[in-house]
Amino acid sequence: MSLLAESTVTVPTLEVFTLPAGFRCAATACGLKPSGNLDLGMVWSDGPCAAAGLFTTNRVQAAPVLLCRETLAAAAGRMRGVIYNSGCANAVTGERGLADARRMQALGAGAAGAAAEEVLVLSTGVIGRFLDMEKLARGVATLEGPEALRSPGDAARAILTTDTVAKLATAELSLGNRTLRIAGFAKGAGMIHPAMATMLAVVLTDARLEPARLDRCLRSAVERSFNRISVDGDMSTNDTVLAVASGASGASVPDDAEPAFTAALTAVCASLARQIARDGEGATRLVELRITGAASEAQAHRVGDAIACSPLVKTAIHGNDPNWGRVLAAAGYSGEPIEPERVRLWFGDRDEVQLLDRGLPLAFEASRASALLAQDPAVLHLDLGLGSASAIVWTCDLSAEYVRINADYTT
Amino acid sequence: MSLLAESTVTVPTLEVFTLPAGFRCAATACGLKPSGNLDLGMVWSDGPCAAAGLFTTNRVQAAPVLLCRETLAAAAGRMRGVIYNSGCANAVTGERGLADARRMQALGAGAAGAAAEEVLVLSTGVIGRFLDMEKLARGVATLEGPEALRSPGDAARAILTTDTVAKLATAELSLGNRTLRIAGFAKGAGMIHPAMATMLAVVLTDARLEPARLDRCLRSAVERSFNRISVDGDMSTNDTVLAVASGASGASVPDDAEPAFTAALTAVCASLARQIARDGEGATRLVELRITGAASEAQAHRVGDAIACSPLVKTAIHGNDPNWGRVLAAAGYSGEPIEPERVRLWFGDRDEVQLLDRGLPLAFEASRASALLAQDPAVLHLDLGLGSASAIVWTCDLSAEYVRINADYTT
Repeated sequence: MSLLAESTVTVPTLEVFTLPAGFRCAATACGLKPSGNLDLGMVWSDGPCAAAGLFTTNRVQAAPVLLCRETLAAAAGRMRGVIYNSGCANAVTGERGLADARRMQALGAGAAGAAAEEVLVLSTGVIGRFLDMEKLARGVATLEGPEALRSPGDAARAILTTDTVAKLATAELSLGNRTLRIAGFAKGAGMIHPAMATMLAVVLTDARLEPARLDRCLRSAVERSFNRISVDGDMSTNDTVLAVASGASGASVPDDAEPAFTAALTAVCASLARQIARDGEGATRLVELRITGAASEAQAHRVGDAIACSPLVKTAIHGNDPNWGRVLAAAGYSGEPIEPERVRLWFGDRDEVQLLDRGLPLAFEASRASALLAQDPAVLHLDLGLGSASAIVWTCDLSAEYVRINADYTT
Repeated sequence: MSLLAESTVTVPTLEVFTLPAGFRCAATACGLKPSGNLDLGMVWSDGPCAAAGLFTTNRVQAAPVLLCRETLAAAAGRMRGVIYNSGCANAVTGERGLADARRMQALGAGAAGAAAEEVLVLSTGVIGRFLDMEKLARGVATLEGPEALRSPGDAARAILTTDTVAKLATAELSLGNRTLRIAGFAKGAGMIHPAMATMLAVVLTDARLEPARLDRCLRSAVERSFNRISVDGDMSTNDTVLAVASGASGASVPDDAEPAFTAALTAVCASLARQIARDGEGATRLVELRITGAASEAQAHRVGDAIACSPLVKTAIHGNDPNWGRVLAAAGYSGEPIEPERVRLWFGDRDEVQLLDRGLPLAFEASRASALLAQDPAVLHLDLGLGSASAIVWTCDLSAEYVRINADYTT
């Protein structure tokens, strides 16, 4: 099966995380989070950038999502920057919420020295509460001043909510005699489901390319990264992935370099996606589901998705319980016409333990199977025996801690 | 909105549970469950009965499901009884599993003095293990002997797995000068999802009616009962609902009585379904989702289903957290074209607290909203503002105990 190339991707620490050429950033704690943690950030370029965005397919779309769509369409993908807050999603807030998002856009534009229609807006946090615009305005004033935090690591931290770690990934790509960089940061731990960009992610690059090309590359990258993860099957009202290209590296991306650029972008997005799944609320490990032998990649994806969304599979993995029947049951209700008598199942990165052979259970060493589930990532490989297409889907285990986190979030 | 009539339904204790006229039962512990709990049961009639069955739509179907389908079709719904075991699902067991199910059918037929093709077979428990036919055969011999337990309560207990309580419901219906009875028992606590009969249930009646009519009544009843519950969104490989009618009451069900009989059957099934949802693994309460103002009943059902399957909604209810944005987010990804600006949401059996009015959040007293979520059942009422159709969907809260139970099931 084809695994995504990971060779070019680095997962830096917050301390050494840097942005591609042409970008600046700032962050602060403006009080939207009662904890006093960083909750407002901005990344921008002094020159015009190409931008592309992908958004939640939820019928309930947060004000910043509506505004981003409108802004990107109106400016044909010509942007200068992104302002974002955590602590309040500005979702289900009606006309007032949209007005607040516009005001936030205008404030960000002022700070970046840009026009309002050149700035994108992201919000994440509790749904159904209005943004505290007073705190936000004071915060944006701070972003412009000497007190603002300027390190990219701080900018990446300001987007987090229940995340326990920041999600960072960078890649380099040489095109001709120039080298371009891609750097992304993301948030997401709960309400994660693969039916479009399922969290907030900002991917910056100093590549030089047109908005239409960036959009095409981003769609391809997201399809095999953010759309392949699930933490809890819940799709958010705010999910957004933005890509912004400054062109400052001087490395342009012509037709023949587009596959290489897309591969690097995909690798960055897939790294962020895996980091999100591993940091799923309450999760103790990443789970990698390799679906092979499918009639189509879409079929492999849907079967993997059904397994990734099964609480029974996820709790079994949490308990290192090789209860593989649950994996097969989930595949069986995926909606895909699988044929149980063709299916094979293994645990382990190198198919160490086979549990099922063409629909029949095999004797296996329970302690060994259990030990493979305890690994990070826990790898499960299901071959459908129907064709030659494949897909990888990532999820995490489901722990009692997930319940604790989510049973008492707003109160 | 139309609530299901419950007036005729009784939820008896195990001690006073009785079967309709014409049925006998037996139960024993044959050792399929390591705990030594009851794990083998049979209900049968001395005369021919009408029977109908509905089965899982999972592509992976357990041997007893395949055998029940075949048997019902071959005998045109003329049955004598049902034999069932817990402790082993006989699922994903291939040809050997099917042979084992046939042998179990023959053993049951011998005990009931019936032909093999007059006996239906149910199994529930761990997937991917073969039935211990030696234990089973010894158990069936016991069913025939003086050591067998003969109370209907014991027969109902023998079908349970991780259930903490038995699920029982009875109803009476007077037709002309005769009274017929309906009595059902069911099992189900995990791997519960509404896309067909989502657990095992046996509904017995002494009504006199043709298999075709019983089948029609059962389909209607299941659609508004077992198909309206979800514990964890996992659809089992073994889900089966069987209805068996002995005719022993002498009360026949002509065309004009079919609606009344269907209503009584629906009430029994809905009571069992609510009992299953309330006893969901780790659950502390029943959750009733009332979806009104829908364009169609199917739409109301799908929106309710999305909410019922949302771990975020279910953990919030567990924590009495009035985080209503999650309810709206789940409705938004249901796949139905809801219009957020038309939606209204209340908590409480009598719409005590309104949280959302035509897409806009309302100020509400958090402690009062929280107290309503703590009730059993916790009632949430979502009006879509799109039409006049409605549906009720039942689920349960999601607790850390669910994870504990499922992280260590087979090992």
